[in-house]
Amino acid sequence: MARKASLSGYLELLPAERLTELHMLDTLRQVFEVHGFSPLETRAVETVETLLQKGEIDQEIYAISRIHEDEGAGREAKLALRFDNTVPFARYVTENAGHLAFPFRRYQIQKVWRGERPQAGRFREFSQADIDIVGDGALPFRCDVEIAIVMARALEALRIGEFSLRVNNRKLSEGFYRSIGLTDTAAVLRIVDKLEKVGPSQVAEELRRTAGASAEQAQRALELAQIRTGDGSFAEKVRALVGDEPSALLQEGLDELSELMSVLNTRVPGRAMADLSIARGLDYYTGTVIETLLHGHEDLGSICSGGRYESLASKGKRVFPGVGLSIGVTRLLSALLSSGELAASRSVPTVVYVTLRTSEDWGAAQDVADQLRSRGISAEVALSAEKFGKQIKYADRRGIPFVWFTDDLGRHEVKDIRSGTQEETDPSSWAPPTEDLTPQIIRKTEDP
Amino acid sequence: MARKASLSGYLELLPAERLTELHMLDTLRQVFEVHGFSPLETRAVETVETLLQKGEIDQEIYAISRIHEDEGAGREAKLALRFDNTVPFARYVTENAGHLAFPFRRYQIQKVWRGERPQAGRFREFSQADIDIVGDGALPFRCDVEIAIVMARALEALRIGEFSLRVNNRKLSEGFYRSIGLTDTAAVLRIVDKLEKVGPSQVAEELRRTAGASAEQAQRALELAQIRTGDGSFAEKVRALVGDEPSALLQEGLDELSELMSVLNTRVPGRAMADLSIARGLDYYTGTVIETLLHGHEDLGSICSGGRYESLASKGKRVFPGVGLSIGVTRLLSALLSSGELAASRSVPTVVYVTLRTSEDWGAAQDVADQLRSRGISAEVALSAEKFGKQIKYADRRGIPFVWFTDDLGRHEVKDIRSGTQEETDPSSWAPPTEDLTPQIIRKTEDP
Repeated sequence: MARKASLSGYLELLPAERLTELHMLDTLRQVFEVHGFSPLETRAVETVETLLQKGEIDQEIYAISRIHEDEGAGREAKLALRFDNTVPFARYVTENAGHLAFPFRRYQIQKVWRGERPQAGRFREFSQADIDIVGDGALPFRCDVEIAIVMARALEALRIGEFSLRVNNRKLSEGFYRSIGLTDTAAVLRIVDKLEKVGPSQVAEELRRTAGASAEQAQRALELAQIRTGDGSFAEKVRALVGDEPSALLQEGLDELSELMSVLNTRVPGRAMADLSIARGLDYYTGTVIETLLHGHEDLGSICSGGRYESLASKGKRVFPGVGLSIGVTRLLSALLSSGELAASRSVPTVVYVTLRTSEDWGAAQDVADQLRSRGISAEVALSAEKFGKQIKYADRRGIPFVWFTDDLGRHEVKDIRSGTQEETDPSSWAPPTEDLTPQIIRKTEDP
Repeated sequence: MARKASLSGYLELLPAERLTELHMLDTLRQVFEVHGFSPLETRAVETVETLLQKGEIDQEIYAISRIHEDEGAGREAKLALRFDNTVPFARYVTENAGHLAFPFRRYQIQKVWRGERPQAGRFREFSQADIDIVGDGALPFRCDVEIAIVMARALEALRIGEFSLRVNNRKLSEGFYRSIGLTDTAAVLRIVDKLEKVGPSQVAEELRRTAGASAEQAQRALELAQIRTGDGSFAEKVRALVGDEPSALLQEGLDELSELMSVLNTRVPGRAMADLSIARGLDYYTGTVIETLLHGHEDLGSICSGGRYESLASKGKRVFPGVGLSIGVTRLLSALLSSGELAASRSVPTVVYVTLRTSEDWGAAQDVADQLRSRGISAEVALSAEKFGKQIKYADRRGIPFVWFTDDLGRHEVKDIRSGTQEETDPSSWAPPTEDLTPQIIRKTEDP
């Protein structure tokens, strides 16, 4: 990770790093699938019109065009690369609604592209791992709970260290703002979302300047945003702050967030924090909103975000509500590789390097390798009969744990390069210790 | 696969189809890794300069640009999407040579993009699965043999039916052309490459018109291209055709192709055919060239192609020879899904659908599901306590094989929806038959 990208903003991994990434992706996939999420992919390309429907980050979109446009080009829709997995998924759902069974749960791990100005930890091409549940017309609130549980388990399975899901509910925030007389709730949410970045005094000022808040209203909005509890006690604090009987909307938000906190504290204890400063800038969230902090990597911002949208997509009168969360895989991986917290035990899948005594032994060596491969043991045969020392060194350089020798009488020996132990063996039955079968992903503690 | 793509040339799969694709990709990965190939990915984006270096399909390249270019844009290199995995890999090798151990073997399964005019079975976005071995300075010929063996095994593992690797050698063809007095061998190869498409008489005419061949030279070039043997007997036929002692280049080609055929016939019997019409249009091949026909799907053209290039990449005086093969995964998958030859047994990873007796049972039902999940059994819990008939129907519609019931005394029963068998059971120990654990990929014979 000390190498410089040859194109600014585009990360490329070395083999051992890619093995680490693949292990992460496999782990996520395993957790998602065991919870009944279907794998799905969408095309990389969308019409610009589709991408701009959500009215957001247009300046970051990469348009594509054929280098040699031909006569038909003018009639084709203007195309661009996806910048997230949500917008394409919404488009996919409306297009294929007739072929899907709702509620539909899918995971989607794909690259996305943003033409952002590259800076530390920001990439122009990166992978996102999304899970969503989408309903046809209605979707029970327990889907919000389930999505949060599954993601918490996925993050635990990654063994990336301590993290906190910071959860809030738009109904709660909006209900509160309205009850104190702030009606442009979208503006208030956008401003409060910057609290961590710009601090309370600037938020208060902006609330007064652009959201029509009085000093007292701004003060109370900030007091709400400062509520943070690891259990359900946030509800009492909100009620104390409102004074009056909560409005229906506020009460609904309180109930939903209380249920979410309660189930999370049972099923993934210690992972959730009710944090009423969480707003999420985007307009389309309508209930649960979630961000995730990785302890010790607060500078990464949220490593996993999302929430509930009552209208993920629509088709005529048909509306598809959804709830989803998305992990920024590339940023996370890149940070953990850079800090040395994650590393692979070797740079190749190979477990056994079969050496050559003479060049003519290549066929016999492939027979040995094939016997190992037939039992799922990755094996590679030397390409030329160099000195054994050189062959061993080549294996060692790539972290291959075992080298294999066959003498001219057809007797076999296998050597563990790490310990130096060498023993007689048989290619039809030998197997490595389970932990050597695939490259191990080593999680190093930060303070050795 | 009856659905129409919403963007012409861009295939999107339904959940069951994606499970089939994923099974294909997993199978390829397993075969590649067990043979010691490292997973690798490169960025989707290359500079246009890099892509045009090989001087080929420039009209098919998709350029990318930020929708809102800013003041810095002019200074940035013009970028485009990769159209294959070979050119980006070559660039990656030169950039990271200092970090790689040579010979370096990698596999790369990624999407590529081509702005071609879409037609049946041609896509603008599609996946290619490549394996290559790259050397630093030199690379033994047995790498050609190994690449062919690994790919043949990968194709066998896909269980897509009978296929033939059609193998040839550029040294053989070029050596032969020179020996009959044809010196513009690149032109001759490009013309002969069209033999299957345009037929012998048009090839003969083109050879006369644009490659300076006499009628007799054209005739002999065609005779060479008609040699096709399942064993090493092609060599005799070539020698008979030359008359004289073969030139050094021709002899080298004969020796290499003979060795390739001999080892393939031993290690993957019945899969290889020496076919001297195989030329591959591209300039950079210098030895072995391979195409693959899937029997019954000849209209697909080659499903897996590649060969040897003495200079895959270079960096100053350092040259990296390589040999590689590439499967066109999307075209292959799309054909087999369309014909109904490949299908998934269900549309979701879920094995067990845990029903709800009352809405309040959701927590207890999640406990049951968690016990199953902890043993790797994919489980999903109903979202609402509809009538059991409706819950079962939802599971059945998606092909989930088992539904789970818990009564008010906490007794458990599991039902196989397919057979109707229902039995008392225990969530801490129940397991499905192994074949139900993951979706099965069903290979249907064409004539049932």
